[in-house]
Amino acid sequence: MVKVGIVGGTGYTGVELLRILAAHPQVSLVEITSRSEIGMSVADLFPNLRGRVALKFTEPDAQRLSACDLVFFATPNGVAMSMALPLLAAGVRIIDLAADFRLKDAAEWERWYQVPHACPELLHEAIYGLPELNRAKIKGARLIANPGCYPTATSLGLLPLIEQGIVDASQLIADVKSGVSGAGRKASVAYLYCEAVDSMKAYGVAGHRHLPEIKQTLQQATGKQVGLTFVPHLTPMIRGIHATLYATSMNTSIDLQKLYTERYRDEPFVDVMPVGSHPETRSTRGSNICRIAVHQPQNGRTIVVLSVIDNLVKGAAGQAVHNMNLMFGFDETLGLDAIPMMP
Amino acid sequence: MVKVGIVGGTGYTGVELLRILAAHPQVSLVEITSRSEIGMSVADLFPNLRGRVALKFTEPDAQRLSACDLVFFATPNGVAMSMALPLLAAGVRIIDLAADFRLKDAAEWERWYQVPHACPELLHEAIYGLPELNRAKIKGARLIANPGCYPTATSLGLLPLIEQGIVDASQLIADVKSGVSGAGRKASVAYLYCEAVDSMKAYGVAGHRHLPEIKQTLQQATGKQVGLTFVPHLTPMIRGIHATLYATSMNTSIDLQKLYTERYRDEPFVDVMPVGSHPETRSTRGSNICRIAVHQPQNGRTIVVLSVIDNLVKGAAGQAVHNMNLMFGFDETLGLDAIPMMP
Amino acid sequence: MVKVGIVGGTGYTGVELLRILAAHPQVSLVEITSRSEIGMSVADLFPNLRGRVALKFTEPDAQRLSACDLVFFATPNGVAMSMALPLLAAGVRIIDLAADFRLKDAAEWERWYQVPHACPELLHEAIYGLPELNRAKIKGARLIANPGCYPTATSLGLLPLIEQGIVDASQLIADVKSGVSGAGRKASVAYLYCEAVDSMKAYGVAGHRHLPEIKQTLQQATGKQVGLTFVPHLTPMIRGIHATLYATSMNTSIDLQKLYTERYRDEPFVDVMPVGSHPETRSTRGSNICRIAVHQPQNGRTIVVLSVIDNLVKGAAGQAVHNMNLMFGFDETLGLDAIPMMP
Amino acid sequence: MVKVGIVGGTGYTGVELLRILAAHPQVSLVEITSRSEIGMSVADLFPNLRGRVALKFTEPDAQRLSACDLVFFATPNGVAMSMALPLLAAGVRIIDLAADFRLKDAAEWERWYQVPHACPELLHEAIYGLPELNRAKIKGARLIANPGCYPTATSLGLLPLIEQGIVDASQLIADVKSGVSGAGRKASVAYLYCEAVDSMKAYGVAGHRHLPEIKQTLQQATGKQVGLTFVPHLTPMIRGIHATLYATSMNTSIDLQKLYTERYRDEPFVDVMPVGSHPETRSTRGSNICRIAVHQPQNGRTIVVLSVIDNLVKGAAGQAVHNMNLMFGFDETLGLDAIPMMP
Repeated sequence: MVKVGIVGGTGYTGVELLRILAAHPQVSLVEITSRSEIGMSVADLFPNLRGRVALKFTEPDAQRLSACDLVFFATPNGVAMSMALPLLAAGVRIIDLAADFRLKDAAEWERWYQVPHACPELLHEAIYGLPELNRAKIKGARLIANPGCYPTATSLGLLPLIEQGIVDASQLIADVKSGVSGAGRKASVAYLYCEAVDSMKAYGVAGHRHLPEIKQTLQQATGKQVGLTFVPHLTPMIRGIHATLYATSMNTSIDLQKLYTERYRDEPFVDVMPVGSHPETRSTRGSNICRIAVHQPQNGRTIVVLSVIDNLVKGAAGQAVHNMNLMFGFDETLGLDAIPMMP
Repeated sequence: MVKVGIVGGTGYTGVELLRILAAHPQVSLVEITSRSEIGMSVADLFPNLRGRVALKFTEPDAQRLSACDLVFFATPNGVAMSMALPLLAAGVRIIDLAADFRLKDAAEWERWYQVPHACPELLHEAIYGLPELNRAKIKGARLIANPGCYPTATSLGLLPLIEQGIVDASQLIADVKSGVSGAGRKASVAYLYCEAVDSMKAYGVAGHRHLPEIKQTLQQATGKQVGLTFVPHLTPMIRGIHATLYATSMNTSIDLQKLYTERYRDEPFVDVMPVGSHPETRSTRGSNICRIAVHQPQNGRTIVVLSVIDNLVKGAAGQAVHNMNLMFGFDETLGLDAIPMMP
Repeated sequence: MVKVGIVGGTGYTGVELLRILAAHPQVSLVEITSRSEIGMSVADLFPNLRGRVALKFTEPDAQRLSACDLVFFATPNGVAMSMALPLLAAGVRIIDLAADFRLKDAAEWERWYQVPHACPELLHEAIYGLPELNRAKIKGARLIANPGCYPTATSLGLLPLIEQGIVDASQLIADVKSGVSGAGRKASVAYLYCEAVDSMKAYGVAGHRHLPEIKQTLQQATGKQVGLTFVPHLTPMIRGIHATLYATSMNTSIDLQKLYTERYRDEPFVDVMPVGSHPETRSTRGSNICRIAVHQPQNGRTIVVLSVIDNLVKGAAGQAVHNMNLMFGFDETLGLDAIPMMP
Repeated sequence: MVKVGIVGGTGYTGVELLRILAAHPQVSLVEITSRSEIGMSVADLFPNLRGRVALKFTEPDAQRLSACDLVFFATPNGVAMSMALPLLAAGVRIIDLAADFRLKDAAEWERWYQVPHACPELLHEAIYGLPELNRAKIKGARLIANPGCYPTATSLGLLPLIEQGIVDASQLIADVKSGVSGAGRKASVAYLYCEAVDSMKAYGVAGHRHLPEIKQTLQQATGKQVGLTFVPHLTPMIRGIHATLYATSMNTSIDLQKLYTERYRDEPFVDVMPVGSHPETRSTRGSNICRIAVHQPQNGRTIVVLSVIDNLVKGAAGQAVHNMNLMFGFDETLGLDAIPMMP
């Protein structure tokens, strides 16, 4: 049994981690922290966990967390980087679900996140926890930067094209739609029911923090500079990301369906759908699956890739547990085999 | 392993049964029928089941179904009663998720369902599959009438009061709100997204088929005639029933919280919440749990009981699997321990 | 033209007032205040008003507001009572959309609102602005207490029964469901999209501030003490209140349909629907209409009344403008004749 | 007063036309037809129209419709083309809200709509009713092809770029998201509440009927062949279209904000928002407005245009009434000045 701690358990990523870990046969939840809810029973805050999680929230404390084998950070950006060094020194492995260790370049990180980075020396050790790209490195990692939700859906959708060099990597477009849970569980007028329901809008068109993360992943895959226009949208769904990806083909004789099927044949959590499919986000609801379909409308030069995930699972907590399974030598799907809930 | 067949697998109850049974460690799904989708792969109709259910829909055929140990009917009313006799004769046990065997009185049944009953001789053998009321009888049953969704939430909410005779049973009120999946997966203008969303309405105020079912259950518990006003409402939710129940206390010295806690202490799927609670339907989403809170506003004579379930699980497929577990001697919670998904 | 000011224009009641008043042919909007948004253009905060409202938010200032003929308070409870005296003294008429002047009994008000009342001397002058009950008094009023949303739907539904004394007024039940906009436009985790959508819950069962308001109205109508159990519910809709009202008939020979039709025959904003109807909240969306249907299921003793409104219009801003029309001698429907938007 | 008839009044476009026309000061509604609902009162089908529309549905009959000055077809594709000739011959003017007269090329029309065209001889007379493009021609037209919802949002968003020739017209991308009402009010499993809510999907990626319509419009504007990838998405909203449009700039020195502002300066229904804006679909809810924002992320070569409308108003019924106003010499905004409803 892995002794697990969670720092910051009151957000949507936190409660989803709890839902998955409470049913994981190799996990013993020993600590969950929250500065704002110290002493409160987890099940009082999240009644779905009544009878399943007996812990109370405690103050984040590096000493107590050092008793864990693994600590997940389900915190806002900036927390993991301030606690990582002592935990690692104490032999604790870390999976950060926030963005602190996602970018390799500290200056780039600081440009997008607008604060100094507290431990840039860990940026190169940190492994970007996209198992479909970095499986081998994840297994031996001490520190995992769990990918963002948009980057997960977008990168998995574009990787086969980029890796094979068959599209113009200087002009990629990612038009991505997210459910509202991606904005987190914080008091904010913008995400009130009456503000977010029955409406849709783009945001961050001038530049979103997930843009450099996606570019870094694609550049790692291709070894070249990548040009990407990334437009996120807020959509009235609880969960779900729908990435619609556009790339210009430079080689129209490629069998795209075969390319994708082979790229992901051994991946337990990537489902390449049949030719002509239009995956629905709800077909992944509550599960760690990414479903992908690839199209070439009217046999033109524009390739359209549709990639859908549940942002809280494959885009956050589920992928983190996948990384844990890899790090601790468990079956990759352990605790992650829930069937999506539909309707 | 129990060899299980499902008749009528294309509705919401059917896909939910499939979701639960596909992950049930003691079930082997051998047959799923649908007149309208013969030959189609289940996973093509319900992509959430891709990689998890390999069956194709077949024509309903009593011969082939006779190879099953257990057949679930997830059909419209009227189908199970036309196929039950030969299946029972072949030694197959049956759980009907529709209403064919819920009422003991054939004349009453025909009054509400407006067709002749095809095998009234089975009405008295059929056991009403509310485990919290009929656990012992369910274990030995050949034929289970799985309760309706409204009756499950309402009966569990009122039973403690009725059994103890502490309320005026002649003037009960059940104001019950249902998510739209209760109306089934059938082409109908009334349940289109644009008709059902962002609105609420009562329906069937003059009389709804679940009224006699609830009355029968309460009358079984009290041995007396029961007067009930039952008003169902259509609510813009996918899943969920919220029953708000009103009864006039005849003995104000009773400790209601204690009454409910004790009544359901050993029930794995009934959660009596702390004093003053207001359960949310979503706290049961995807699970077989019924959460109940009991109130006596301003210490007056009116008792208010709040009872919430997921209509497709505790109100249909989950309760059916609970009945199966009882009938086949499995642990009651086997395959039913999913933690509710929130948000 | 009436010179109108609005104090507190950043909430849902405020933006709805603006939507109605900006199109009202007899209104000149001269001032809109907001402590939090001073200097911001109204149309920047509410882009639906771009090109229609040119004002900027100003600091609330009694001096400047004194130039108005009428001031609406679309503020939290407690603001109107602190500014009413000087405005009235300056000859300004007031419509308070909050609760400051709704209860006649200052002690009762303080019990429910938990703060001292700042000007109890105005409580008896204030007219409860339910035109269907108090039309004549409203016409001459200086100070209107605009009714709450739950009380509007509930009182209009019960008044015909109470006025005629044909039900047991000691045991009334109001099971009322509200859209989320009733909770206002304030940063609060409880009303986030992901918290409020796809779920339902009761709240305030032990006691809600609208309970004494409804009781006062019904008691004014009947002259007797009234016993009421009031259970509000939060429902995943933007707008809409659905009141399901239960009363025990003491005279089963009454023609209820006729009673309601005659009671509201001359009311421009109450629509008594045909026998057997089930009004949908959306059939009132964006309009000042209350639709009512009355039922007596199975000809029993329990009368069921269904009453629906748009909480932001008939339950707030629209009713306030109706009161304004009465106070200033305009046609009652002036500016209030929008047809409900469906779907 | 214009005597108006509506053929096919039971869909969402029909009820929205009724809502607008019933309040239009220059319209007398004289006839509304529906094969399926003959004899039913319009207000019984659409209770939002109670007290506002007194008509009953009648059988479509060219003779009776000939008494109208103007007939709107709010029918499925294929109806208007079968009735247009006799009506025009009788001096009736026609606005078809379906697609029968939108494409100039009959062969192209037949390729996309898969039926023979019943009166190709009218295709060249028909005026494509996008006032921002064809205002002058609309004024004198007998027969208007009212634009589709996707084409309206997309064309208005791209026209300024195309007309000025500053983007590569061979590689345009339109990623467009629609509310569910765009699918119409017909019994269909795919658009049930439980199928469409809390999920998102692309559809018709291989080719959608609005693709040739948009291309024709853009080609008319530029005089050249246009290459367009058009991906529509189904989104859980009642109303609303959000078009996210991508084009590659060939002249980065253009002031895009100025270009858009000047192009639409005199347009009553196009609102070019300030630099950096992200329009929400709800900011147009219930109104005939199209709001547009133009971006050039990181000053790169990719221009991103955001264009939002209410698909039932500017994308259907409202634009049709705008066309009527032009045809009959009324003020363009007559009957179309409702302020969007928010929330």
